[in-house]
Amino acid sequence: MLESDMLPSPLDSSTSYLSTSTIVALCLFFALLCTCVIVGHLLEENRWANESITALFLGLCSGVVVLLVTKFHSTKILIFNEDLFFLYLLPPIIFNAGFQVKKKQFFKNFTTILLFGVLGTVISFCLISLGAFLLFNGIGITNLGIKDHLAIGAILSATDSVCTLQVLSQDETPFLYSIVFGEGVVNDATSIVLFNSVQSLNFSSINAITVLKLLGTFLYLFCTSTALGIIVGLLSAYIIKTLYFGRHSTDREVALMMLMAYLSYMIAELLNLSGILTIFFCGIVMSHYTWHNVTGNSRTTTKHSFATLSFIAETFIFLYVGMDALNIDKWKTSKASIGTSVAVSSTLISLVLIGRAAFVFPIANIANCIKTRESTKVEFRSQVVTVLLTPSLQIERVFNTGQCPTPSHFIIWWAGLMRGAVTIALSYNQFSKSEIASAEDSALMITSTIILVLFSTVVFGSVTKPLIEAVKLRHSKPDISGSTDNQEDLRLLFLESNSSVNQRRSTLSLLRHYPTTTVHCFWRKFDDKFMRPVFGGRGFVPVAPGSSPAEDEIS
Amino acid sequence: MLESDMLPSPLDSSTSYLSTSTIVALCLFFALLCTCVIVGHLLEENRWANESITALFLGLCSGVVVLLVTKFHSTKILIFNEDLFFLYLLPPIIFNAGFQVKKKQFFKNFTTILLFGVLGTVISFCLISLGAFLLFNGIGITNLGIKDHLAIGAILSATDSVCTLQVLSQDETPFLYSIVFGEGVVNDATSIVLFNSVQSLNFSSINAITVLKLLGTFLYLFCTSTALGIIVGLLSAYIIKTLYFGRHSTDREVALMMLMAYLSYMIAELLNLSGILTIFFCGIVMSHYTWHNVTGNSRTTTKHSFATLSFIAETFIFLYVGMDALNIDKWKTSKASIGTSVAVSSTLISLVLIGRAAFVFPIANIANCIKTRESTKVEFRSQVVTVLLTPSLQIERVFNTGQCPTPSHFIIWWAGLMRGAVTIALSYNQFSKSEIASAEDSALMITSTIILVLFSTVVFGSVTKPLIEAVKLRHSKPDISGSTDNQEDLRLLFLESNSSVNQRRSTLSLLRHYPTTTVHCFWRKFDDKFMRPVFGGRGFVPVAPGSSPAEDEIS
Repeated sequence: MLESDMLPSPLDSSTSYLSTSTIVALCLFFALLCTCVIVGHLLEENRWANESITALFLGLCSGVVVLLVTKFHSTKILIFNEDLFFLYLLPPIIFNAGFQVKKKQFFKNFTTILLFGVLGTVISFCLISLGAFLLFNGIGITNLGIKDHLAIGAILSATDSVCTLQVLSQDETPFLYSIVFGEGVVNDATSIVLFNSVQSLNFSSINAITVLKLLGTFLYLFCTSTALGIIVGLLSAYIIKTLYFGRHSTDREVALMMLMAYLSYMIAELLNLSGILTIFFCGIVMSHYTWHNVTGNSRTTTKHSFATLSFIAETFIFLYVGMDALNIDKWKTSKASIGTSVAVSSTLISLVLIGRAAFVFPIANIANCIKTRESTKVEFRSQVVTVLLTPSLQIERVFNTGQCPTPSHFIIWWAGLMRGAVTIALSYNQFSKSEIASAEDSALMITSTIILVLFSTVVFGSVTKPLIEAVKLRHSKPDISGSTDNQEDLRLLFLESNSSVNQRRSTLSLLRHYPTTTVHCFWRKFDDKFMRPVFGGRGFVPVAPGSSPAEDEIS
Repeated sequence: MLESDMLPSPLDSSTSYLSTSTIVALCLFFALLCTCVIVGHLLEENRWANESITALFLGLCSGVVVLLVTKFHSTKILIFNEDLFFLYLLPPIIFNAGFQVKKKQFFKNFTTILLFGVLGTVISFCLISLGAFLLFNGIGITNLGIKDHLAIGAILSATDSVCTLQVLSQDETPFLYSIVFGEGVVNDATSIVLFNSVQSLNFSSINAITVLKLLGTFLYLFCTSTALGIIVGLLSAYIIKTLYFGRHSTDREVALMMLMAYLSYMIAELLNLSGILTIFFCGIVMSHYTWHNVTGNSRTTTKHSFATLSFIAETFIFLYVGMDALNIDKWKTSKASIGTSVAVSSTLISLVLIGRAAFVFPIANIANCIKTRESTKVEFRSQVVTVLLTPSLQIERVFNTGQCPTPSHFIIWWAGLMRGAVTIALSYNQFSKSEIASAEDSALMITSTIILVLFSTVVFGSVTKPLIEAVKLRHSKPDISGSTDNQEDLRLLFLESNSSVNQRRSTLSLLRHYPTTTVHCFWRKFDDKFMRPVFGGRGFVPVAPGSSPAEDEIS
């Protein structure tokens, strides 16, 4: 467009309906994405590298090239766009996570996940805010207000669920995956709620009621977001079951599933709820009901296409973060010496480390206490109480060694240290506004956040896999010393918690031998009797009289 | 964002990182898309309706609702965005068309398709431009220059391939589909090239050399765009075959195919080639080679997910065109009386009808002449010449009755009358600029284009299916009068041209009995000997020693 304006040659075939900068940016991004997929495939066997790190490095390298080509002028390509991230990249990732999650495992650990995700995030938020408030004055950053310090706390409390997905394997370490990833989703939602609350908080009238209101808001958001996701998921199942889409086209089924999932996210955002939680639960419900109502081809297609879209979005995010790290404007504006930058970044990293340690180990200990108390009383309690306590009995399985910190605590702590795109997006949102007195300090906060994200993804991310392997190897040596507590502890962490290893624990095996008493079993009865006949599900696929395209189409 | 600025309540949970208007627009669009899918499914059996028309009507209705809600203020939701259309909606549709096209049928009719798509479009362009130039002064539109008249010719010459895809069925009428759809793709590319040439043409120095240059540019664009598509397609096949992606993940294969297809479109646009042609040929090559190199699950996934994405994009376009029709600003600016609007619109519609008639029937007659000449000489020609003439021998099969116009000519003429989103996008591009002297006349041209698109999609689109059925029914009555020329003609149009009906035609059956003489056969030999061993393809899937995940993964 620009070219054809400048050079009006008699025959110029430039496609004047598209702007050149958009095309160049898209070309670059798609070429890099292809490279990432290929390099990621080649590095598959390498346990230190993963797709995130490859994408980050490629992003950094191409950022350098772009800077050199444009002679250190800032270009639009490099700037992180919040809309793009929250509207188009995050939803497919979280939806796919819900769609592919192992539901049994996730719901068994639901209480643990909530404890980590909500209580833990709040503890971490308080500690990081306080730490930032106390330490930053010492470094020489004096222009930040109380709102900024609280925002830093909220921003740095968000564990990156995207990176966790890439580092941990659902099949190899299902329990660890379910705890850390589940925590990541709840934790993202918590920190976004905290962040929004902080932004809209009126600090002239802060008191106990404000804190209560904050709690109330959070509970309201959690429940309504979850309910919305479940309703949309059930609606999709009902529509596909009743109208029997597969009769006319597999593509229509797949399209409807995609569209309704995205619609749930958008409705949640429209109603000011947490879209992440909504689309996550929508994914879970869809995989439980809707997925069983569609044709065989639709099943294969949805399973893989959702995973593919999520994979592309993840890679795109890391590329983007890598390129964004070289946002030259911010580096110029911050004007901080290397010393100050390093000081701020290492302060932030330390705060993240301490903030996470401050809730992982105590919550584990609380769980231990509950366990000690419950295991002596469990025989005297009624069945209903046992049912209520089942999740906490699950927690006990992890934290049952009496030692603190055990290797399992340490791994849970370590695996949740990564910070990612949510952190960067929130940081931009807070510090790129003009409200803040000092432009230098806010630019410094953005650059430090970027350093933190790069450092945590590269260092913590690349070490996690080898660390888990090393710990597993050390503790799973042939049964020389018998089954020590630590070994049992780690087995529970890595393997499915209902594997045969746990048979000797009396409370749990009691529950397994009388499965009618568990919540899960009540749910299954309810599901079989009321839900599946209406919404479909495994074994409830509708069959039209005289034809069975669902079976026909399976090839 | 706006709300929280205006109402600084102590606890406002609004997601401040997203703008409300974007969310509202996305919510509305995705809710409408879901409705379209469901309504389209319910109307599947109805032969008058189709998804395009449903989407257009839903778009119009919601446009009315939006206008009423915003009290006739223009809203951003309603305005057609060229970037969105050319960057994100058109590529998946055209790629899928290439990916799912029946290659044998398409290449057999390649000469016919080129004749219609290139020569036909140029004839139509000249006629419509001339007509607009002569007639518009009579209606009272005097402010348009020669550039505008030529642009109108280019804009109205683009048959809508998207609507054609929905109205014609590849399985029921393969020959008609292959001719009309193939023409549509080539024709879109031709009219975009013509449009760009017109926009950049210097009218002070117009002469024979300019016309030659125009021709040269077109041939250059056609060949380079096609070559680029083929190269990217082959590259994807080679990479997936060599690196053996399925070993690690099905999702990576699918991602790479998607990314490389889109990359081909972007590279074409970057190099100022025709992205539509490139991605179309990329789709063809990918379905011939790459698709056979991936795992069974990837095959099912790609087949259906590409179709689904294309389906969503198509529905989105029609919704968008429907909503855009109520772009109140344009209607206000045009200030034309209803009489003038109707006059302009009906002039445009007549020009489209005449413009298409002016090339469909003559080209058919030329083909008839070629046929008459060739069928007497074919025995004396060498095999090589026969090979070169094979495509024209195919044309003869359609136009072999001597009558003009035959029902088959009529149907080819009718099925290509629809105008769609490409027309609207180009019209916006031409007439929303400030260059043109009269804002009123240019607004009138946009509104008239919108009326033309709505009219042609609804009227021509809904009549096509019943028309084909009626003609088929009338001519396929039990063999009372024997095999008339017309009947034979229509059978050839509707059925695959190598079906057993054609056996009695000597020239064609000669070619079928000595298939070694056809281009197709040369190509197959070349393909089997040189291409497939390198790029894979049916029967050339790599099998790793000791494992065969391609077979394992087929469920």
